[in-house]
Amino acid sequence: MTDGSMNIEANRSTVFPRAGNEIIPADEAWITEARSHLDSLTKPIGSLGRLEDLAARIVAIQQSHVPSVDKKAVFVFAADHGITVEGVSAYPKAVTEQMVLNFLRGGAAINVLAHAAGAEVHIVDVGVDATFDHAGLISHKVRRGTRNFLHAPAMSGEELQAAMDVGSKLAAEANSRGVQLVAVGEMGIGNTTAASAITAALTGQSAARVTGTGTGVTGAAFSHKKQIVADALTFHFPHYSEELPAALEILRCLGGLEIAAICGFVLSAAKHRIAVVIDGFISTAGAAIACMLKPAARDYLVAGHTSQEIGHRLLLDFIGIEPLLDLHMRLGEGTGAVLAFNIIDAAVRIYTEMATFHSAGVSGAIQG
Amino acid sequence: MTDGSMNIEANRSTVFPRAGNEIIPADEAWITEARSHLDSLTKPIGSLGRLEDLAARIVAIQQSHVPSVDKKAVFVFAADHGITVEGVSAYPKAVTEQMVLNFLRGGAAINVLAHAAGAEVHIVDVGVDATFDHAGLISHKVRRGTRNFLHAPAMSGEELQAAMDVGSKLAAEANSRGVQLVAVGEMGIGNTTAASAITAALTGQSAARVTGTGTGVTGAAFSHKKQIVADALTFHFPHYSEELPAALEILRCLGGLEIAAICGFVLSAAKHRIAVVIDGFISTAGAAIACMLKPAARDYLVAGHTSQEIGHRLLLDFIGIEPLLDLHMRLGEGTGAVLAFNIIDAAVRIYTEMATFHSAGVSGAIQG
Repeated sequence: MTDGSMNIEANRSTVFPRAGNEIIPADEAWITEARSHLDSLTKPIGSLGRLEDLAARIVAIQQSHVPSVDKKAVFVFAADHGITVEGVSAYPKAVTEQMVLNFLRGGAAINVLAHAAGAEVHIVDVGVDATFDHAGLISHKVRRGTRNFLHAPAMSGEELQAAMDVGSKLAAEANSRGVQLVAVGEMGIGNTTAASAITAALTGQSAARVTGTGTGVTGAAFSHKKQIVADALTFHFPHYSEELPAALEILRCLGGLEIAAICGFVLSAAKHRIAVVIDGFISTAGAAIACMLKPAARDYLVAGHTSQEIGHRLLLDFIGIEPLLDLHMRLGEGTGAVLAFNIIDAAVRIYTEMATFHSAGVSGAIQG
Repeated sequence: MTDGSMNIEANRSTVFPRAGNEIIPADEAWITEARSHLDSLTKPIGSLGRLEDLAARIVAIQQSHVPSVDKKAVFVFAADHGITVEGVSAYPKAVTEQMVLNFLRGGAAINVLAHAAGAEVHIVDVGVDATFDHAGLISHKVRRGTRNFLHAPAMSGEELQAAMDVGSKLAAEANSRGVQLVAVGEMGIGNTTAASAITAALTGQSAARVTGTGTGVTGAAFSHKKQIVADALTFHFPHYSEELPAALEILRCLGGLEIAAICGFVLSAAKHRIAVVIDGFISTAGAAIACMLKPAARDYLVAGHTSQEIGHRLLLDFIGIEPLLDLHMRLGEGTGAVLAFNIIDAAVRIYTEMATFHSAGVSGAIQG
């Protein structure tokens, strides 16, 4: 998987991956023009709230006054985590493999919700500790799970780059196929532990503040999970609360292969001017790293929902994006992102299909 | 419109409309069984949050383990308001008629969003001060707008009953046609003033606490609107903050014909065991009256969203229901309700289409 010519020195924060080099910020002139059109539609000005914000942003992203998000796809990145040997999850590690098979058979929540939203589902093996033989799987295994980040960096610099490249290439391919709206999801037993550690290192917050129950650890197991995160932070970044480490180094030491792939995917989607809907805590961790590397990537992000996982809201605030939905979900897979597809689709249709006051012969406001 | 045999004594709170007589509360046994099925699906228990709550409720409402909300419809009730002569709205009264025509031509936000959600749109004239000639309009005009409730009851008892019957019959007809999920919306310049007055009278709150900017009144005009609401309350119910008036009397004195129709619609939909998605402040006012008349109606309500209109959240709390979406909208028409259709649809599909741990061969939790 790893192409030696693309290696980066992950220890040096000044080195950025190629994919994001050309991300342009959303153009304010397009947003202003979009607002002007929205104000001409038969409704009180601003009365569609965030639908209008979304429509204006999609117009600016696509640089088109006939925006479309008809062609949608969700990419579910799956990988295993060495940290699972520490007993941080309520589910056995084998569930990563089992759920990948469930995705491929169409029986998981993400399949059902993507189908309802009219979106393609792509399952990507970027590092599951299993051997698959399934034509429907996108196989880009970088390694069979990360190292246990309690005692070693989760990945080498080469592995990090390879995983980011997986995401980067898939976003580029989606763009080539005409996909207009993408979502990222993930599957990986142990990955809320990785996302918690990343969040602490990115924000300087304590392990206790960012570590949640994941798939459902309770009691002593939950305390243990928090301690593992705290110990891993001390091991890799003993001074993180005073001086924040470089983003790529955080990702390399604490990340999951799927989180790295999501980071690369976000950067590449932004470069190709495709809006990316992020899902819960894990995909947001990948997106947060992407925004640290290339702040303009933020203009292409839509936060599908806010998860029940305690660190998610904090991470969204850190990036500075407001989630669309809050349905008390905490599943991952891309489920919250795909559920927001319909909201974004509705926003775009408002922009392109509504009548104007002029065309409909409706009187404007008397005042205000 | 008015059928003398159905008259009610609106002054007597003990008299209930016929439509709601047979509303049965959602059956806890069905909800328990639905939860059990949801817990068997390939996801951590409860991890789909409110989607699971919604699915369980639809199962209980439809009393079926193969629930469906494929056939959806939104009913937009339009009427004019005598109170508009007091200068309470940012838009001229003629906009009610103009927007009804816009609905019928398919150019309004509700048309766009309902189309996106795969829902039928029905436009109902229950009291617009205009003469229409359009085959697509459901014409059940009770009178050409309410009386100015600053100086007189908005409706007579007969008119109230007639308006409620309009909604009641339409819900019954929808049920006959096999509609499985309905939403209520409204159009009526001046109707946030009516909804504000209703909310104050129902909850005992001050006019200032419940009166918002509606379609966009500002400055002195907004102060004036609040004063009008306060004066109307003093005129009809001088002691409302100490002793709450009867719900039907509140509706008769302060209501709109569309609000009465929505009240009747909600009661009838509940009676026919159809879930009703309410929209913003005005439709929630109608639903709140329905819940005062028949508390079991609440089990059939889904709050599509929370509106920016100040009194809406208060009214939702009064009923005791939690909105699904918060997208800073304040348009009405049913837009927020229809936007929630996809969420409810997704919830039902999760219930009927996901694999179980057993069928998918996925391991369960180790703990918790």
